[in-house]
Amino acid sequence: MRGESTVAQGKTVAESRTEMTELVLPGDSNQLGNIFGGRIMYWVDMAAAMAANRHAGRVAVTASIDSVEFLHPIRIGEVVHLIAQVNWVGRTSMEVGVDVYGENMDTGERKKTSTAFLTFVALSQTGQPVEVPPLILRTPEEEERFHAAEARRQERLKKKQKASRL
Amino acid sequence: MRGESTVAQGKTVAESRTEMTELVLPGDSNQLGNIFGGRIMYWVDMAAAMAANRHAGRVAVTASIDSVEFLHPIRIGEVVHLIAQVNWVGRTSMEVGVDVYGENMDTGERKKTSTAFLTFVALSQTGQPVEVPPLILRTPEEEERFHAAEARRQERLKKKQKASRL
Amino acid sequence: MRGESTVAQGKTVAESRTEMTELVLPGDSNQLGNIFGGRIMYWVDMAAAMAANRHAGRVAVTASIDSVEFLHPIRIGEVVHLIAQVNWVGRTSMEVGVDVYGENMDTGERKKTSTAFLTFVALSQTGQPVEVPPLILRTPEEEERFHAAEARRQERLKKKQKASRL
Amino acid sequence: MRGESTVAQGKTVAESRTEMTELVLPGDSNQLGNIFGGRIMYWVDMAAAMAANRHAGRVAVTASIDSVEFLHPIRIGEVVHLIAQVNWVGRTSMEVGVDVYGENMDTGERKKTSTAFLTFVALSQTGQPVEVPPLILRTPEEEERFHAAEARRQERLKKKQKASRL
Amino acid sequence: MRGESTVAQGKTVAESRTEMTELVLPGDSNQLGNIFGGRIMYWVDMAAAMAANRHAGRVAVTASIDSVEFLHPIRIGEVVHLIAQVNWVGRTSMEVGVDVYGENMDTGERKKTSTAFLTFVALSQTGQPVEVPPLILRTPEEEERFHAAEARRQERLKKKQKASRL
Amino acid sequence: MRGESTVAQGKTVAESRTEMTELVLPGDSNQLGNIFGGRIMYWVDMAAAMAANRHAGRVAVTASIDSVEFLHPIRIGEVVHLIAQVNWVGRTSMEVGVDVYGENMDTGERKKTSTAFLTFVALSQTGQPVEVPPLILRTPEEEERFHAAEARRQERLKKKQKASRL
Repeated sequence: MRGESTVAQGKTVAESRTEMTELVLPGDSNQLGNIFGGRIMYWVDMAAAMAANRHAGRVAVTASIDSVEFLHPIRIGEVVHLIAQVNWVGRTSMEVGVDVYGENMDTGERKKTSTAFLTFVALSQTGQPVEVPPLILRTPEEEERFHAAEARRQERLKKKQKASRL
Repeated sequence: MRGESTVAQGKTVAESRTEMTELVLPGDSNQLGNIFGGRIMYWVDMAAAMAANRHAGRVAVTASIDSVEFLHPIRIGEVVHLIAQVNWVGRTSMEVGVDVYGENMDTGERKKTSTAFLTFVALSQTGQPVEVPPLILRTPEEEERFHAAEARRQERLKKKQKASRL
Repeated sequence: MRGESTVAQGKTVAESRTEMTELVLPGDSNQLGNIFGGRIMYWVDMAAAMAANRHAGRVAVTASIDSVEFLHPIRIGEVVHLIAQVNWVGRTSMEVGVDVYGENMDTGERKKTSTAFLTFVALSQTGQPVEVPPLILRTPEEEERFHAAEARRQERLKKKQKASRL
Repeated sequence: MRGESTVAQGKTVAESRTEMTELVLPGDSNQLGNIFGGRIMYWVDMAAAMAANRHAGRVAVTASIDSVEFLHPIRIGEVVHLIAQVNWVGRTSMEVGVDVYGENMDTGERKKTSTAFLTFVALSQTGQPVEVPPLILRTPEEEERFHAAEARRQERLKKKQKASRL
Repeated sequence: MRGESTVAQGKTVAESRTEMTELVLPGDSNQLGNIFGGRIMYWVDMAAAMAANRHAGRVAVTASIDSVEFLHPIRIGEVVHLIAQVNWVGRTSMEVGVDVYGENMDTGERKKTSTAFLTFVALSQTGQPVEVPPLILRTPEEEERFHAAEARRQERLKKKQKASRL
Repeated sequence: MRGESTVAQGKTVAESRTEMTELVLPGDSNQLGNIFGGRIMYWVDMAAAMAANRHAGRVAVTASIDSVEFLHPIRIGEVVHLIAQVNWVGRTSMEVGVDVYGENMDTGERKKTSTAFLTFVALSQTGQPVEVPPLILRTPEEEERFHAAEARRQERLKKKQKASRL
């Protein structure tokens, strides 16, 4: 069975890479024509969920989203471009990174608007967390992303412990 | 003019309070019937945008969202209940807090799933940041939320400076 | 079992109270920027279905909607605010009342646009009508609403008999 | 100008006739697979708004909807069929009648689920009520519908006067 | 059983006739206010799928769509009117023809925008192709459409063979 | 001005390349869980419209879609992956090619489901056809696609002339 073997063998970062392109329509934006932050977050989570599903070989659910900034407005008629990949894996959880770009198709201008880091947990058919394949790192950039993700994970755990002590 | 006077006089926290109730439909959830995290984030941003608009008396756009955890799954046929209010205001920016509850309408069971803090900036018709009314604090709980928001703001600024030094 | 006991004990009006806030988007409105009446009716039925489900502890379906007037136009960028609660219960049916307000978030102006009364029937998993808990009335206003609902019910029955005689 | 002349000449009932067929999808229905009443009302208003617009030659908005019953459940995968036409016209208002059928496409079984009567007002570009063309009645059935609509109108006015005296 | 008998007896063209009317909303159109071709194709497939389901008495899936031209732009606030019917049937497949009209409801002007021919295959509950009832032709126009469909089918087969030889 | 210069200089095929990934949700599929052909066509047109807009530096509208086959079913929970690029350009029109893949994220299995060729026309702000930049071909594969598109164009013109002679 493929599922079994990939848990043993692992999967590359490239195998989880997910690219989305979405046109901003009037229902996605406020009265001034600027996209809602929540619309971007919806697409960020979709792209990340697909990357996590591709790595785990099963449905994965969002456990948390790190803080996200919206650096540049994106407007009706422009395009939101998202690129997601698995950065790090634990036993049943994964960190997925998503870069978000806004693009004006008329001028070709393209700006990075946001970077998001999400934690997903792979689930069995009955909804229990299950083990995910190891992540095979092929490039120095992938190694670097793995270590940065590891550091963010430590931060999250520290923050959680601090919160639970209050 | 009302807009003028409220900038001078300020508005209470209660005036920005926004309550949303949304039924989880099949298109909002994954193959196991659990709601997408991105769907929740979409509603969180909508509730917060309405609270910010009510306080500012004008359209406000999302500048950032602090990290969010999803503590309990919410399922198709259940209800997502959101309560948002302005916690803190600066000159042109506001922090909005949103509490998210999942409710099973059959059993009446209701659990807090997430708490989110979002920063909004009020915009003029031409898209420039504009001053918002002061926030009138009426209860000890509102005072406390204001101070906690102030602390989170300092954290965000510190984090930003650290990032820009890298 | 909770379901059993609540049928015996009854539930308060407050337990079914449902509040929705929806932003009017371009897809919800006609060429002049005014919301479609059908969009409001969709939200009215959603709010009422949630109130009925909360009272019955199970899915309930719309049996009828009394006549509804749309007194004030609501426009793109404004907010529709709905408040629903169970007014009256019979053996397997309930009357739910819904008040609809339009709000301009910039000026804070808020107008009652419509009042709707809907009849719901609670259904078992196999789609058969099932008994609902009694309604516990706590305030004079709730008593009054109960009696007005009772009168509307008599009106509906009379109208139905008249129609069937034709 | 066509608009001018039709106000003078009038339009036939057939010219406003509008037929819609909609497939019931999972997002349109509750946990038991039955369509939401609000979804039907949304389509009823759309069909009626198109019939009114066709007669008036301009955008018309819903002023009121008479009471509606839902006689038979319609389920996911079935079809909702709607037929709307202008029944009656006043100076700036029109009554539109809508018949709603549910159809199981596998068995071909088709049942009338609801009949709705809606009042629309034709609006100018600036949102003021404007005169609509007279209605040309061609068949005895159209005459009958006109008189029934006239009677309903008297009922509505009586009910309104009674309500305003309270 | 009805399904059995209709396979033997056949169904008329009129029994599959499906009429849809859809209002073009802002989310259906580009920055200039013209409807997306893909939105029309979505409705064309829906109308055709309903016609095919009505004839087959079961779900049918799209196997192919012949080339489609968009002759006239349709704009926000206008109406798309679609008329579909089964033109031809084989053993498990059917050709459905769809005529698409754009209508300006203010002027009453109506233009044929597109004609589409789709091939559907009827499926059993387990997803296997199943036999469909014969098509009963009642009018010369229906006979003519049947023969034209037969000719298109030969064209498609020839094109397929040519492609497979490459 | 960039727009001016690119008309003179031309753009590469890579500049128009558009990649979309969409998750199939319950509202996108029929009773058996298979995606509607019309849903795929909607995404095909969106991907192609973005590729055309990127090349032209302005909004472009769909003039025609060549025949499309759906070779493999795609199911709820699977992913539709689309890759579009401009194949050929004339004075004001462009041919865009779109490859459509269905992917099961659990097994990683991926199949080409459809190939579509669409013709777009670039429009000015007032809706008039306008000149598009030349297409710079960089690879033998791009040259080949250009020539195949040229041949398809001749076919379309021949077919049109034949049709107009009837």
